[in-house]
Amino acid sequence: MSNLKASRPLSVSQAISQRHSIHAFVRDRPVPRQILEEVFKVAQNSASNFNIQPWEVKVISGEKLSQVQDKLVKSLENGMPKEMLEPPAKFRDRIEKQGRVLHGEGFGIAREDKAGRHEVLKLNFKSYRAPCMALFCMDKGLATPDVASVGIYLENVILLLWEQGLGSIPQMTMAWYPEVFKEEIGLSEDLQIICGLAIGYPDEDANVVKVRIPKRRWEEHVTFWE
Amino acid sequence: MSNLKASRPLSVSQAISQRHSIHAFVRDRPVPRQILEEVFKVAQNSASNFNIQPWEVKVISGEKLSQVQDKLVKSLENGMPKEMLEPPAKFRDRIEKQGRVLHGEGFGIAREDKAGRHEVLKLNFKSYRAPCMALFCMDKGLATPDVASVGIYLENVILLLWEQGLGSIPQMTMAWYPEVFKEEIGLSEDLQIICGLAIGYPDEDANVVKVRIPKRRWEEHVTFWE
Repeated sequence: MSNLKASRPLSVSQAISQRHSIHAFVRDRPVPRQILEEVFKVAQNSASNFNIQPWEVKVISGEKLSQVQDKLVKSLENGMPKEMLEPPAKFRDRIEKQGRVLHGEGFGIAREDKAGRHEVLKLNFKSYRAPCMALFCMDKGLATPDVASVGIYLENVILLLWEQGLGSIPQMTMAWYPEVFKEEIGLSEDLQIICGLAIGYPDEDANVVKVRIPKRRWEEHVTFWE
Repeated sequence: MSNLKASRPLSVSQAISQRHSIHAFVRDRPVPRQILEEVFKVAQNSASNFNIQPWEVKVISGEKLSQVQDKLVKSLENGMPKEMLEPPAKFRDRIEKQGRVLHGEGFGIAREDKAGRHEVLKLNFKSYRAPCMALFCMDKGLATPDVASVGIYLENVILLLWEQGLGSIPQMTMAWYPEVFKEEIGLSEDLQIICGLAIGYPDEDANVVKVRIPKRRWEEHVTFWE
């Protein structure tokens, strides 16, 4: 059993209802190492395909994180990865809804302001000023069910952090420039990056922390058969 | 906010620490539809890549579930899918550890008892007698980050069910025979099955519900960089 003493004791349903991805962190308030260790200890109980426990996590903070972020932003300035998949057109509505709320209401950027949106993408590669970033990786020899296992584990980490008063945001874009992580933390050629997770205390004064991304109604996703 | 009144109010860390995959359910105790609806309602708040919310869920129970299971077992008797990937050798140890505990201690089957192990695989396709099974699917045009999003959502469903006293087990093998779901529930050609989730009340008398699969120590998966 865990030693975690939740800073805000939350039931499972409360935590899942309240949690939202954080787009502005307090840079100079570090994430206590002890909390991280306890979170990873408890999350280790996650279910996984054939008990493979495919997750490999690199937690980066301090000077090393600044170096990684500088290189990520430089990589972005040199262009986006060519092999990026465009999601099918039917999902554009959901993506645009997020863009309108985040860029428009959250960051106060007009729709036609391309430079402003690029600044937000740079901020994304600086993990929205989070003092800590965890990279979630998986062996390249594994497959789709194992990616789902990483997602299961990732959500447990996110919820455990939330219970401790820590915000986070999964960052799938951290898979764009693997060479940065090879250079900076010696990331193995055997590992595929699934995503990053920016971790820190939310900057409650930031407008973008107050907005909420609209979700679909559950009935649009779930059908029953008897 | 949710209307869920948890039958066992659990903190996030308690739920994640206690939860384990269930390999024996009470067949004749149905899963209340109202609980399922509330769970899916709350889980809809899950984070997802670009807000795509890629999950599509088919909840199957009753007569329909029996028909699906009969066909799955028949498919199994005709052979395993050819395109199945063998996980890299370095993961064999973790897989075998699960096998030893589940088959050996849990189901009381000797290691060399191939027929006994096949019976367990058949039981797997009957969702360990669960009265309900949810199929988690995703559009085939989506990619790896979206599979991770489905995993995030799946874990929220698992934890919300656990909080309501309901056990579950993710079943990646439900992706083996998509033709069964095409025939029985008209599963769209556009959808890829990520996994099934057997759902029900655990059969607390069953020996296999008492065993626990050993997990690695977290320090083997997590490294820190500063």
